[in-house]
Amino acid sequence: MRAVILEAIGKPPRVADMPEPQPHTGQVVVELKAAALNHRDVWIMQGKYPGIRTGTILGSDGAGIVDGRPVLINPSLNWGDDPRVQGPDYEILGMPRHGTFAERVAIESRQVVDMPGHLTFEQAAALPLAGLTAWRALFTKGQPRHNDRILISGVGGGVALMACQFALAAGYEVWVTSGHDAKIEKACALGARGGVNYRTDDWHKELQKRAGHFDLIIDSAGGAGFGRLATLVAPAGRIVIYGGTLGTIEGLSPQLLFWRQATILGTTMGTSQEFAAMVAFVGKHRLVPVVDSVWSLEEAPGAFERMARGEQFGKIVLKV
Amino acid sequence: MRAVILEAIGKPPRVADMPEPQPHTGQVVVELKAAALNHRDVWIMQGKYPGIRTGTILGSDGAGIVDGRPVLINPSLNWGDDPRVQGPDYEILGMPRHGTFAERVAIESRQVVDMPGHLTFEQAAALPLAGLTAWRALFTKGQPRHNDRILISGVGGGVALMACQFALAAGYEVWVTSGHDAKIEKACALGARGGVNYRTDDWHKELQKRAGHFDLIIDSAGGAGFGRLATLVAPAGRIVIYGGTLGTIEGLSPQLLFWRQATILGTTMGTSQEFAAMVAFVGKHRLVPVVDSVWSLEEAPGAFERMARGEQFGKIVLKV
Repeated sequence: MRAVILEAIGKPPRVADMPEPQPHTGQVVVELKAAALNHRDVWIMQGKYPGIRTGTILGSDGAGIVDGRPVLINPSLNWGDDPRVQGPDYEILGMPRHGTFAERVAIESRQVVDMPGHLTFEQAAALPLAGLTAWRALFTKGQPRHNDRILISGVGGGVALMACQFALAAGYEVWVTSGHDAKIEKACALGARGGVNYRTDDWHKELQKRAGHFDLIIDSAGGAGFGRLATLVAPAGRIVIYGGTLGTIEGLSPQLLFWRQATILGTTMGTSQEFAAMVAFVGKHRLVPVVDSVWSLEEAPGAFERMARGEQFGKIVLKV
Repeated sequence: MRAVILEAIGKPPRVADMPEPQPHTGQVVVELKAAALNHRDVWIMQGKYPGIRTGTILGSDGAGIVDGRPVLINPSLNWGDDPRVQGPDYEILGMPRHGTFAERVAIESRQVVDMPGHLTFEQAAALPLAGLTAWRALFTKGQPRHNDRILISGVGGGVALMACQFALAAGYEVWVTSGHDAKIEKACALGARGGVNYRTDDWHKELQKRAGHFDLIIDSAGGAGFGRLATLVAPAGRIVIYGGTLGTIEGLSPQLLFWRQATILGTTMGTSQEFAAMVAFVGKHRLVPVVDSVWSLEEAPGAFERMARGEQFGKIVLKV
């Protein structure tokens, strides 16, 4: 079958012929219809990820068919018994195990759930990893309350955008930041109240003037800007962080944290229960993940390039 | 009556004659027997505190007598309705309201609780502010679980030492850090498993080698060392921070936070319910707060100097 593999670290992925998957007991073979890229795939390509094995079929997100039934794949494998944190056997589909950028993938039957009926395969494939991460960040960790005001940074990214859609569907007031004005406008078109460009001076002061403080902030950047982001947290507020694209957190005031009784919560991926709850929520609210662009499997190298340049708004999808 | 007042910012406090307190409706007058210093008092003296008013009687901690009944004063005033965070009317006894470094203080009757019977007035006076802060940090915010391993940084301080005693009484494995080897030894004499001196190179690696990771870390320093402290957090671990003596937090890895699903919780002081629970715990376990030294009211300037130098192990107490 055709598949997108990591041939060598630092090189674009290659589309190659790979052997058919051989399912073990308890596994099914999903006939993939669509898959989606995540930053994780690009970091793996760039060698910035633990446990990389060359020759692996990439891809965590996939939607397809098992026995005529449209399904979504939960890429969060072997979480373990503790809902608070993944255990030592935890892994994410698509490295080191063969992933979804292929015609077929073998996966434990407990990892597939029915696809929400209102979605196309391309839309559904955009959901799993980003939706799961956003769900845990927003609801499990962020624990929003009635009337909470929410800030989501870097809204162009898949998780940020999904968190934005979830928060809006749940009725919260949502504000955003981005490095691109066009992405802020698109988020506002989805229902966000407003946003600021974090490349402008004193963006945090501008945002505070316009919106006030935030009960919940969801960030994936960290870095030197995190201290400024934290000044926007309301009393008893939470900052949930699921990424660190700008490196170590600097300039964070302890006084601000303790006077405001603020909390910073690290999060990544989620449990099977969270995955099921997320998919049910998407079905109930008939949410449609934002698809940036659709590429064929053979065009995968181009899709990776677009992801690496950070130009997308929404998910980059591969049609199988 | 005799009292210790802040005459001018940056100057040692002065012992002076002050008018007798005039209780309002709902207030009682506590005949003080002992009071205790907190870092807050020194910061007020140094002008490093919001809302300073000269001429105020200093002091948050006090034990004394009301109608022949030995009582402790809860210095946490007007917390408000939300247990998560103090409201806009919140203040701490001893600035801007007259405090406990005096022969008598007027205080709302709901702020006094019965003194645990096993304590002297000097020991009891050491309890309120540090005990309340330690209680909320350790139990309300830290939420320790059975078999959790706990690290308490800067164990010479009043809150740190109280947290250490509470955690030991509750049966947890406790480790400590300090800048003074003698303080580590004293903490071990109380029951701590061990500790490292944070002035040594790679103290965090040494501690990890000896103890492993920590489910709960309680810190009051922040600063550049916080990033190293954070490397010691276990999966699903919590870092509770109630002070910032070393300034802004630097070098904190987002990856570490999100992979380990770690949480950082800011905390300060506590509610009336927490105060009552703390005093009941001290009574039940017959805990005795560590008293560093006892001074007369007239010797208060010397007591402030000792506090400012950071030489103490345990609380510095004024006997009235």
